[in-house]
Amino acid sequence: MAEETQSWAERFGLPSTGDARAAWGSADFYARFAPSGDFDGTLLAVHWVYWGFAFDDAYCDTGPYSGDPAAFARLSVSVQRAVEVPHTPPPTDPFMAALHDIGTRMRKLASPGKNRRFHAAHQAWLCGVQWQIANQASGLVPSLDDYLLMRLHASGGEPTFALLEVANGLPDIPPDEVGGPAVRALTEMAIMVAALDNDRHSAAAEAARGHTGQNIFSVLANAPDVPAAEVSDLAVGLRDHILGMFLGLRDRVVANASPALRRYLADLGHGIRGNAEWGQRAARYLAAGDGESPAVANWADAPLDSAGRTLRPPAFSWWWNAFAPANAALGGGTCAR
Amino acid sequence: MAEETQSWAERFGLPSTGDARAAWGSADFYARFAPSGDFDGTLLAVHWVYWGFAFDDAYCDTGPYSGDPAAFARLSVSVQRAVEVPHTPPPTDPFMAALHDIGTRMRKLASPGKNRRFHAAHQAWLCGVQWQIANQASGLVPSLDDYLLMRLHASGGEPTFALLEVANGLPDIPPDEVGGPAVRALTEMAIMVAALDNDRHSAAAEAARGHTGQNIFSVLANAPDVPAAEVSDLAVGLRDHILGMFLGLRDRVVANASPALRRYLADLGHGIRGNAEWGQRAARYLAAGDGESPAVANWADAPLDSAGRTLRPPAFSWWWNAFAPANAALGGGTCAR
Repeated sequence: MAEETQSWAERFGLPSTGDARAAWGSADFYARFAPSGDFDGTLLAVHWVYWGFAFDDAYCDTGPYSGDPAAFARLSVSVQRAVEVPHTPPPTDPFMAALHDIGTRMRKLASPGKNRRFHAAHQAWLCGVQWQIANQASGLVPSLDDYLLMRLHASGGEPTFALLEVANGLPDIPPDEVGGPAVRALTEMAIMVAALDNDRHSAAAEAARGHTGQNIFSVLANAPDVPAAEVSDLAVGLRDHILGMFLGLRDRVVANASPALRRYLADLGHGIRGNAEWGQRAARYLAAGDGESPAVANWADAPLDSAGRTLRPPAFSWWWNAFAPANAALGGGTCAR
Repeated sequence: MAEETQSWAERFGLPSTGDARAAWGSADFYARFAPSGDFDGTLLAVHWVYWGFAFDDAYCDTGPYSGDPAAFARLSVSVQRAVEVPHTPPPTDPFMAALHDIGTRMRKLASPGKNRRFHAAHQAWLCGVQWQIANQASGLVPSLDDYLLMRLHASGGEPTFALLEVANGLPDIPPDEVGGPAVRALTEMAIMVAALDNDRHSAAAEAARGHTGQNIFSVLANAPDVPAAEVSDLAVGLRDHILGMFLGLRDRVVANASPALRRYLADLGHGIRGNAEWGQRAARYLAAGDGESPAVANWADAPLDSAGRTLRPPAFSWWWNAFAPANAALGGGTCAR
């Protein structure tokens, strides 16, 4: 799969992401998300992951677009167009042509419903990147609530998890099930845990590359009511708390889930774990740093107990409000505070 | 319906759109799109239309955000959040709170599938506005292809047409049908015809308000290969040609459509006609101009014959390529050139 990805990337003239192991890394990454995926679907997902990493490096985190929100606004709509509809002749830009190829193959391989869900996730990701670039351009460190909402989208977790349905090649999850609030909340929680893990893995590398430093640590350090000594515990405590909510809610939802949804929910967990393992070792985070990952931590035995001071960012309050035990629709269960 | 809309807007403190007839205008507008809609669904659509016009005036076309792509990037994601998920307590900004109310009611009234389609359309609209604002900020007149792609999204046609499913209150259009390429192409064509009609209606009013003047006429006038004498005919010819394609393709698709899709396809046509009628008379276009609509034209008896020089913008080439007569999947029929 890595070899096929490398050939594919070379055919379109995509840059390597600064590491000869880029194709291997993309395959290793997504195989962790979809361990039971079928070959063609997973290969397509791996190609998007390769493309996404390369796009991120070229346009989002560094490069001339990364500080120019107006230029990115145009690019963003054109990129989205490339994945959504057939163009002939295909665009000549390597990124556009490669993404167009992914979109074309996805239309052949997956149902219109899966395609539309991927398209919507892709669009939301680009909107998050647009916001990230706007902050970079103005040197702004956002509030915690703004940061988490931006990061939910800008992290790329939405398209990455939407690809699970493509990779697994199962019948569509029924629309009322996949579109309901519980599955949405679980997806958001999984994205946020993975994004906060990435913040730990990449913070040192990004600092070394001279980034604006939008990450959970800099955001909390910049918040007026957070003592410096509490930044790290609050960040880790928030991540652990969200993971706890995810696990509790997933147990309740999986009990009545269709087979395709059960696989999706299992793979959300695989993605959380796979992302963390991958991030601890991935060359792309080490390349720009001091040769040591900032978080070669082993797994903790228990969630961090942040002594009752768990953050509840308003843009995500619905996780707590909609899925607390009092919510009759989903029955019992506890979101541990 | 207009009275209920006025009360609703006042309850949230939304501004009138510069005209005491704003609520009446929104109801008049959407009743033309969904003449067979049910009351609650259509009322919800009318509220969004009211909200959209007010948001457009306050943030997109004029006001401090209209020239600040970085500020709009943040606003855009927060706005999208307000319609997609429940917040408690609801946000205090009138626009956010009113949109949050629309989102909450839509989740109660319509299926998750309809909600997701509306959300995706809403997101795509905001991305188009982001691009429009980026051009406004840099004083850029885009190329024809860029303009049409921007306008497809920025015009707001996507959420407006996605509301048809909510307004009609019918069972969901099957995912493979509503997500297929033909329905997508028909939706895009309807949006583009309406957007080009709006360009005719609003060109004079926008010029009077000192806009950058991104419209089909200024874009063609700025194109290097278009003689000034041909601008108007090319613009009208393109619009008429797209309408011809729409009518031909719709005839072919409707033959095998489900009842819910048939209603949707009929209402795309109602929307094209309703938008044109409404635009010729609407106070919002007259208010800022010289008191005369630039296009109080009656209906033409036949499409403009642009003597073979029909524009085929590359971002939309798939309309021609996918739905030409040779395309076996849809059988016969002709897209008149």
